[in-house]
Amino acid sequence: MSPTRNAAVLFNEIPNDFPVPGKTTKYDESSTIDLDNVSLGEDGVLVKTVALSIDPYLRSKMRAADIESYQPPYLLGKPLNSLGVGRVVRSQNPKFKAGERVYGLFEHQEYNIFDKDSFLQALPETPLSSATLVGAAGMPGGTAYIGYKEYAQAEKGKTIFISTGAGAVGSVVGQLAKLDGLKVIGSAGSDEKVEYMKSLGFDVAFNYKKTDTLEVLKKEGPIDIYWENVGGATLDAAIETLKKDGIIIVCGQITAYNGGDGYNYKNLWQIFARSIHIHGFLYFDLMPKWIEQFSKEFLPLIEKGIIKHKEEVVHGLDKVGDAILRVQKGENKAKSVVLVADDKDSH
Amino acid sequence: MSPTRNAAVLFNEIPNDFPVPGKTTKYDESSTIDLDNVSLGEDGVLVKTVALSIDPYLRSKMRAADIESYQPPYLLGKPLNSLGVGRVVRSQNPKFKAGERVYGLFEHQEYNIFDKDSFLQALPETPLSSATLVGAAGMPGGTAYIGYKEYAQAEKGKTIFISTGAGAVGSVVGQLAKLDGLKVIGSAGSDEKVEYMKSLGFDVAFNYKKTDTLEVLKKEGPIDIYWENVGGATLDAAIETLKKDGIIIVCGQITAYNGGDGYNYKNLWQIFARSIHIHGFLYFDLMPKWIEQFSKEFLPLIEKGIIKHKEEVVHGLDKVGDAILRVQKGENKAKSVVLVADDKDSH
Repeated sequence: MSPTRNAAVLFNEIPNDFPVPGKTTKYDESSTIDLDNVSLGEDGVLVKTVALSIDPYLRSKMRAADIESYQPPYLLGKPLNSLGVGRVVRSQNPKFKAGERVYGLFEHQEYNIFDKDSFLQALPETPLSSATLVGAAGMPGGTAYIGYKEYAQAEKGKTIFISTGAGAVGSVVGQLAKLDGLKVIGSAGSDEKVEYMKSLGFDVAFNYKKTDTLEVLKKEGPIDIYWENVGGATLDAAIETLKKDGIIIVCGQITAYNGGDGYNYKNLWQIFARSIHIHGFLYFDLMPKWIEQFSKEFLPLIEKGIIKHKEEVVHGLDKVGDAILRVQKGENKAKSVVLVADDKDSH
Repeated sequence: MSPTRNAAVLFNEIPNDFPVPGKTTKYDESSTIDLDNVSLGEDGVLVKTVALSIDPYLRSKMRAADIESYQPPYLLGKPLNSLGVGRVVRSQNPKFKAGERVYGLFEHQEYNIFDKDSFLQALPETPLSSATLVGAAGMPGGTAYIGYKEYAQAEKGKTIFISTGAGAVGSVVGQLAKLDGLKVIGSAGSDEKVEYMKSLGFDVAFNYKKTDTLEVLKKEGPIDIYWENVGGATLDAAIETLKKDGIIIVCGQITAYNGGDGYNYKNLWQIFARSIHIHGFLYFDLMPKWIEQFSKEFLPLIEKGIIKHKEEVVHGLDKVGDAILRVQKGENKAKSVVLVADDKDSH
């Protein structure tokens, strides 16, 4: 068979501020791959990319390669990568069969070869779309589930505040809390997102650009649990309205990803005065402990529609740069997914 | 018997900045007490004040009475209060006998009557001085012991950084960590304090006014545990050099007590990136859980001289204002104690 195009999105330049499509990242169609003859190596698996997850944390990988951080950096001139779902084209690894869907860390190319050290998991047969499998049923939903289960000490009657409550993670946290009988307060940056949170059953939902977070929390709090996603003034307001022995679960700080000079926190000393406990965690560290319960308890909630979710799907690998920027600016209306190939197409 | 002088230190004015002796607080000799005939009420105990503990947190009580915080405020025109040791003069309560030493929350007066709701504990017979009983063997030492035991997850080979390592709490934390085989790094604000930390066996001790904290931690770290007492640049530097899954134990933030406009933290987002866990706690909440082990395991370490300690003792109730200011400015050379009466005098 003649070579097939293997387009990619390359990391082109380290951004100082927001990542600019075409500058920070470049879509490139110059590579090809011979799907029938390319060598897979021992245990190699050739996978056609179907859906790529576009998440806030990708910005933290767009840095100089010598700066250490929790995520390996993107390398200049090489493809970006993120979690994704694909379909196996050919496999030398007995754990994966041609035609099956898989979940893994995908380079942003139309085709990838995964070796035995790559992060790649077979997906069970499920009616869920590949977009959902990288969203509510994938890392974002999983992040929500395991962070909440591990740290929230949720109990009926408690109050939780969730920043970015309309996001892929926050929206799931809020719904889990409602199922447990908590009072749920969520913030987001647009009226549309506020409506979405209300449709999910949040007790209080507000647009932080129009309403002062501290005022809302003073009125609707005090809070027992703060699900932290943004940092800055929101974190400071949450600390001010946390109850004694309050809990903060830190799942990200989007205000810190795009440069900036830190934030002038006024309330950090309350951490000891109120006996506050703060827990940072990463999905890949905690998931092994929770994977069985996640599959048994959580995935059925998604399949049955008890936990609701939404994806903002754009089509085409060339849209990755735009999708990343939308997420960094908070303009995406739902979990951002780039669909690279037809979800039903097996080859 | 004729009335006896019952001098007091009164809260006179809410300070904006450092508390000024004679202005913020006033020594007052106008009150008297009839030691033989004053009514003690049901279960009341008349106690002669011997030693008063002067601690950093007292500053947080010098505020408007309508501002809520973790410690009840001082009331204008009323005596200050703090933990202290005294000797029972008369007792209507069968739990306390005349002549015995007691530990409790003392108003800053020469004599106090404790009712049955007051915090007052009988002290066991011990060769320790009253100054030590409010210091290393009292709340500061207890704070060190219970915070360390509850949260540090100390293990041989780990590294701990202690800000205010020469302080009443920090010096005990460092010695406990050395007993457990940790590498101990301590900071303080004078060369004399640095020498004291070295004499206690700290592996690294430095004067943060002369040496950059971040540079020291980069060279001597990374650290597993940070014992936080100060906030600000020190906390930011500690976060930057904490290992993944690092622990911060927050025992106070002296930089935040004396007004000021907060601090521009640059590294808080690392909390999630490094999966950092932060624990604030208060002595009175945690002590009931640890009191037995504290008495059995920790007090003998003090009595045998295995855990070393120092007190800076000034004589006379009229010195309370000065002692408080010295502690707030970090000028005290050891645990600050005001000795109000002769330690051996029973009446």
